[in-house]
Amino acid sequence: MLVNGKPGNLISIGDRGLLYGDGVFRTLRATQGKVQHWPLHYQKIKHDCTALGIACPEMDLLSAELNDLLALHPNGVMKVIVTRGEGTRGYTPRGCAEATHLWDRSPLPEYPSDWATHGIKARLCQLRLSHQPRLAGVKHLNRLENVLAAGEWNIADSGIAEGLLLDMEGNIIEGTRSNLFLVSQGTLITPDLSRCGVAGVQRDRVMAWAQYNMPLQVRDVGWDEVLHAEELFVVNSIIGLWPIRELEQRCWNDFPVASKIRGYLNEP
Amino acid sequence: MLVNGKPGNLISIGDRGLLYGDGVFRTLRATQGKVQHWPLHYQKIKHDCTALGIACPEMDLLSAELNDLLALHPNGVMKVIVTRGEGTRGYTPRGCAEATHLWDRSPLPEYPSDWATHGIKARLCQLRLSHQPRLAGVKHLNRLENVLAAGEWNIADSGIAEGLLLDMEGNIIEGTRSNLFLVSQGTLITPDLSRCGVAGVQRDRVMAWAQYNMPLQVRDVGWDEVLHAEELFVVNSIIGLWPIRELEQRCWNDFPVASKIRGYLNEP
Repeated sequence: MLVNGKPGNLISIGDRGLLYGDGVFRTLRATQGKVQHWPLHYQKIKHDCTALGIACPEMDLLSAELNDLLALHPNGVMKVIVTRGEGTRGYTPRGCAEATHLWDRSPLPEYPSDWATHGIKARLCQLRLSHQPRLAGVKHLNRLENVLAAGEWNIADSGIAEGLLLDMEGNIIEGTRSNLFLVSQGTLITPDLSRCGVAGVQRDRVMAWAQYNMPLQVRDVGWDEVLHAEELFVVNSIIGLWPIRELEQRCWNDFPVASKIRGYLNEP
Repeated sequence: MLVNGKPGNLISIGDRGLLYGDGVFRTLRATQGKVQHWPLHYQKIKHDCTALGIACPEMDLLSAELNDLLALHPNGVMKVIVTRGEGTRGYTPRGCAEATHLWDRSPLPEYPSDWATHGIKARLCQLRLSHQPRLAGVKHLNRLENVLAAGEWNIADSGIAEGLLLDMEGNIIEGTRSNLFLVSQGTLITPDLSRCGVAGVQRDRVMAWAQYNMPLQVRDVGWDEVLHAEELFVVNSIIGLWPIRELEQRCWNDFPVASKIRGYLNEP
């Protein structure tokens, strides 16, 4: 655990990350002292900081800190947070001295191994995502919608591994902590994230894979189209790729495209 | 400064207030060792905690802490934050041990005294508020919209004291840090906050005043209606009441209703 480069797990109560959720974050999967695609993650952090007008720490600085952490903890979930730091009282982002950056680490979660191969049970959340083009795609610290959605079910009771989210207009957007893809008539489809949602690194990687392997559409997708897709799968940097085998009374058994992409994502 | 009842100004980087903005807050104005309408503020905190499913600390506990702070600092802005505390990794709000509650204090801001009597210059913000009925009215820690809006202008250059916010459909909702009222044809009007916005204690107090003094409408209000209002004013617990004297090329000079309400709000 590092706060502004120093070992520690405390932050000032005057930090705007706490006061307003005024910051961004990413979670990385570390195994055997290595993190996959760190440069892509850094690119996203930098992009998201720019969207909020936060001066992002340099890549060299964050890379060095990550390496120090990996030397101590070769395996785990590494979370990096960058906030606007401390400022004067009030919402104005002017007059903040320096961004705060910090690293936290948790043990790698242990998921049933057949979730990746045979798929997960998913559900449709009741909460609808709001439209805010100024924040869409950005992995910022205002995550109450995700919290409320994740509170709708209990994995222990239901075996449900992920919830899918519609926006206010009924378009499917993403999972509570993952991006969603559909396979339909030989095309890979992923929801447009220009009005809401979080654009993850794994989503970019799947889209990059499609460039050489399969037609890709990034567009609005209705719920009906989800239920009639040939394959559905969710991705994020911690879970990798999970096909969906069960969703609101619909079932899927065969995931040829998802399996191929999973193989690609797992390559070092 | 108190964190969970103990003197200090640090919080764990694992607190969900920082990680997700998973909490609520209120700011109170303390003068001469007294805070106006603390029971109303507590009621709001409790309501907002309930909206998020956070177990709110008891009033006796927060009151005792506030009194301790007031004994040390009779004047200032007292901010109270309640977060869901620390939990397991991930968005799910289940399995959190205990809410975190903390107090921070800043000096009272010094505003030009004629803002309260002769009115402020205000502007219309470009940022549009998104609709999220599940969070509307709640003063939660997901405040990036307010931050982005407050970043649109510089008070030092422009003399603009507050920015007004429309929602995505063009209804006026509030100020970046205040609630808005209009006076039109003998009626007091304030925007409906069931889809977005923050319902402040001062807004409730103005609405309570209206019950005995003036017809009140709580409803959708378009921008055109704002520009043609006879009086406009904004309220919050720190500033009290400011009439608006200038807004996007329109000017107002006379504030008979606002002055009456300001007198009422300032009563001890």
